[in-house]
Amino acid sequence: MKAVIKAVPKGTVTTPEGFFAGAVSAGINERAADKLDLAVLFSETPCVAAGVFTTSRLKGAPVQLTRQRLERGQVGAVVVNSGCSNSFTGEHGLVDAAEVASLVAEGIGIDPEEVLVASTGTIGVPLPMKKIRASVENIIMSRDGGHDLAKAMMTTDTMAKETAVSVKIGDSQFTIGGAAKGSGMIHPDMATLLCFLTTDAAVERGFLKDTLKKAVETSFNMVSVDGDTSPSDMVLLLANGMAGGEPITAGSEQADVFRQALEQVCVYLARLIAADGEGATRLVEVTVNGAASVSEARKAARAVVSSSLVKAAIHGADPNWGRVVAAVGRSGADMDEYKIDLFIGDIQVIRAGSHLKSGKRAVSQLLKGSEVNLRVNLNLGEVRATAWGCDLSEEYVAINSEYMT
Amino acid sequence: MKAVIKAVPKGTVTTPEGFFAGAVSAGINERAADKLDLAVLFSETPCVAAGVFTTSRLKGAPVQLTRQRLERGQVGAVVVNSGCSNSFTGEHGLVDAAEVASLVAEGIGIDPEEVLVASTGTIGVPLPMKKIRASVENIIMSRDGGHDLAKAMMTTDTMAKETAVSVKIGDSQFTIGGAAKGSGMIHPDMATLLCFLTTDAAVERGFLKDTLKKAVETSFNMVSVDGDTSPSDMVLLLANGMAGGEPITAGSEQADVFRQALEQVCVYLARLIAADGEGATRLVEVTVNGAASVSEARKAARAVVSSSLVKAAIHGADPNWGRVVAAVGRSGADMDEYKIDLFIGDIQVIRAGSHLKSGKRAVSQLLKGSEVNLRVNLNLGEVRATAWGCDLSEEYVAINSEYMT
Repeated sequence: MKAVIKAVPKGTVTTPEGFFAGAVSAGINERAADKLDLAVLFSETPCVAAGVFTTSRLKGAPVQLTRQRLERGQVGAVVVNSGCSNSFTGEHGLVDAAEVASLVAEGIGIDPEEVLVASTGTIGVPLPMKKIRASVENIIMSRDGGHDLAKAMMTTDTMAKETAVSVKIGDSQFTIGGAAKGSGMIHPDMATLLCFLTTDAAVERGFLKDTLKKAVETSFNMVSVDGDTSPSDMVLLLANGMAGGEPITAGSEQADVFRQALEQVCVYLARLIAADGEGATRLVEVTVNGAASVSEARKAARAVVSSSLVKAAIHGADPNWGRVVAAVGRSGADMDEYKIDLFIGDIQVIRAGSHLKSGKRAVSQLLKGSEVNLRVNLNLGEVRATAWGCDLSEEYVAINSEYMT
Repeated sequence: MKAVIKAVPKGTVTTPEGFFAGAVSAGINERAADKLDLAVLFSETPCVAAGVFTTSRLKGAPVQLTRQRLERGQVGAVVVNSGCSNSFTGEHGLVDAAEVASLVAEGIGIDPEEVLVASTGTIGVPLPMKKIRASVENIIMSRDGGHDLAKAMMTTDTMAKETAVSVKIGDSQFTIGGAAKGSGMIHPDMATLLCFLTTDAAVERGFLKDTLKKAVETSFNMVSVDGDTSPSDMVLLLANGMAGGEPITAGSEQADVFRQALEQVCVYLARLIAADGEGATRLVEVTVNGAASVSEARKAARAVVSSSLVKAAIHGADPNWGRVVAAVGRSGADMDEYKIDLFIGDIQVIRAGSHLKSGKRAVSQLLKGSEVNLRVNLNLGEVRATAWGCDLSEEYVAINSEYMT
C-alpha cells in the first residue's frame, strides 16, 4: 500500500481536525508582562492520549498530576503556562496545578480529570494563582489558535516551534501536528522539554503509547543543549479519532506510516529545539555509523553533541577534530582508533584513524555554516544513530547568569 | 600513636628526599615558544610506583606505554611535555613516546623501561621529535627543580599547582609532594588530568596501589570543569623509600596516617585544579550530606558541580537555587523533595523542601566570593561526599573557541 506524508504549510498543533487552542498574557513572569504565557489546547471530542516524562527524581507538580490522569483515561484538554514551572513547590504546588485544571474544565464544560497540566519556567516558585484565576476566562479558543499556544510556551526560546504533516494512505487521510518548547535544560536520555502532539487519526491506546515512546527515543532524546534536565519535561500525544476509520493498532496496515509520520514531526521539532538552544548560532548534527549496537551508536553520537569542547570549537569554527574523537572515546561506546573515519560536512578528515591532509581552511569555512554536520564511522558494525545539538557561545553563559535576577 | 601532618612551605614534587627535576623550553607549542614545556622528574634510588589512568576508550600513546611499564616493575624517572598530547597518533605515537623515554634514560644512565612518559596538549598531532631530541640534553636536574616541572606541565592553566606535606609519626618522618595540571577536559569519574606524586616513605607496592586509588576517588574524581575527559589523563605515585624504615603495608601502624596525608595532598591539588578551571572566577565546593550510600552522595555532589545552569548562575551571582535541587533530582541519587535542606555558605535557603525567606541579596553577595560553598542534606542516611568545580564564564567559551586556530 502506498502512502504519502506531506508537510502542511504553516502547520500547527491545531491543524488536525477538531483541535482548538487559545492563549493570553497572564503576567506570570513579571519580566515579560506582555508575553503570551497561558494557553489551552482543546479537542471537541475526547482523546486517547499518551505521555513521556522527565526521568529526574524531582518531578514538578504538573508532571505528577498529568501522569496520574493519563493513566486513568481519556483527555479533553491541556493547559500550559510559561514563566513558572510549579516544580519543587511541595504539596501546595499539586493543589495549584489541580486548581488550574479545574478552572479550564469549568470554562470548557468537561470533567476536571480530563484536563492535563504542563508548566515551564523558574523552579521553586509558586504559581501566581491570582493572575491565573483572573486570566483563564479571557482565553478565546479557535481552530487557528495553535500558533498562539506555541508562542505561549516559549521561555528563552527565540522562535515558536511547530509543524504538521498530512498523511494519505489508500482512501483514508489523517493529520499529525505538534508544538514544542525548549532551549536550556535540554539533555539526552530524558523526556526533555515540553511538546504537545495532536492527531485526528483514530489510534488504539497501547499502540499510541508504544509509538510515542519510540519516536521520542530517536528525536527528543537525541537532543542536547546543556546537559541539564528539567523536572517539568513532558511530551504528550492526543488522538481524537476525528479522521474516522478503525483505530490504528500494532498490526494494522496504517501502523508503519503512522509511526513514520510521527517520527518525522518529532525529529523536525527536535532539530528546531537544538538549533534554538540558548545562545546557539549553529545547529550541529552528529551521525554515528558503523556501530555494533543501537545503544553504542546513540552513546557515541550524544557524547559528541554534548561535549563542551566540541561545541566551543564549532562556535569558533576551530578545526580541532581531535576533540570529536576524544568525545567518542569517553562515551563508553566501543571504538578502535585504527578503524575510525570522520567527515566534517563532505570533507573526510580522518580515514581508518589517519589524519588526511584535508584543507583546514575549507573545514573551518564549513564550521561557519548555520548547520554543521559531523559523521563518524566506527566501522565496527551496521548500526547508526543521529543526535542534534548546538554550538556553545558566550551568549549561553550570559543568558544563564542573569535568568532570575 | 600520635602523628602530625604539616604543610611544607613552598613544597613541591621534589621536596621528598632523593627527588630531582628540571625543565626546558623545547618550543613544542609554537604559539608559546618560550614556555617551559619539557620536564623530567628523577629519583636517585629506584621507586615503587602506582598509577591511575583515563577511563576513555581512546588512550594516548604515553598512557599505553606508562601503564605497561608500571605493571612490569620499578621506576626511575618520568618525562612530561605540554603542548602536544601525542594521543590519537597511532603506532607512530607509541614509537615516539618510547624514544622520548629512551633519550631521558640515556641522559640519566638508567634502563629505558624505568622511564614513564606523560603528555598533555592538542589531540591528533604528532610530537615534534626533532625539537625534543635537541632539547632533552639541555635539561638540568636539581633538588629544587619541582617548581619548574609544575610550570612545564601547564597548558591553559594560569598557575603552577604543587604542594608537599611532612609527616611525623613517633620517631620516623616522611614527606609527600605533588605537582598537577588541569584546566579543561576535566570531569568526574575519571583519572583526570596529569598529577605526579612523590614520597620518600618506604611503601609496599600493593598498599601503594590501593591507597592511590582511594585517594583519587575522593579528590581528582570529584572535580569537574567541563564534563570532557582527556585520553591522556594519569596520576602517578612514586615512593623511593629514602626516609628509611620498614615498608608501610596495609596492616602497619603508619598505614592510616600515610593514607590521610596522601589524601590531603590530592584534595589540595584537586581544589587548585577546580579553582583554575578554564575561565573560572570562582571555586565551587558542593557537599552532599545525609545520603544513603557513598555512590549516591558522590552522584548528587558531582551532578550539582557539573551542572551548566548551576555554574552559570554562580557566575552571575544569581540566587537561583532551584537549579541546585533540579541537578540533585536528575543525578540518579535517591531524593525526597520534602526532606531536602540546602545551605549556601552559612545561609539556609531550603529546610525540609520549604523555601526559607532568606535574603536573596545576602545569598547573591555570598555567590560573589572567590569560593562558593553549597551544602545539600538529603536527610536519607549518614553518608557524605564533596565535589569541586568552578563557575561557567564567557571566558571558558572564548578559550575553547580559539584553542587551535
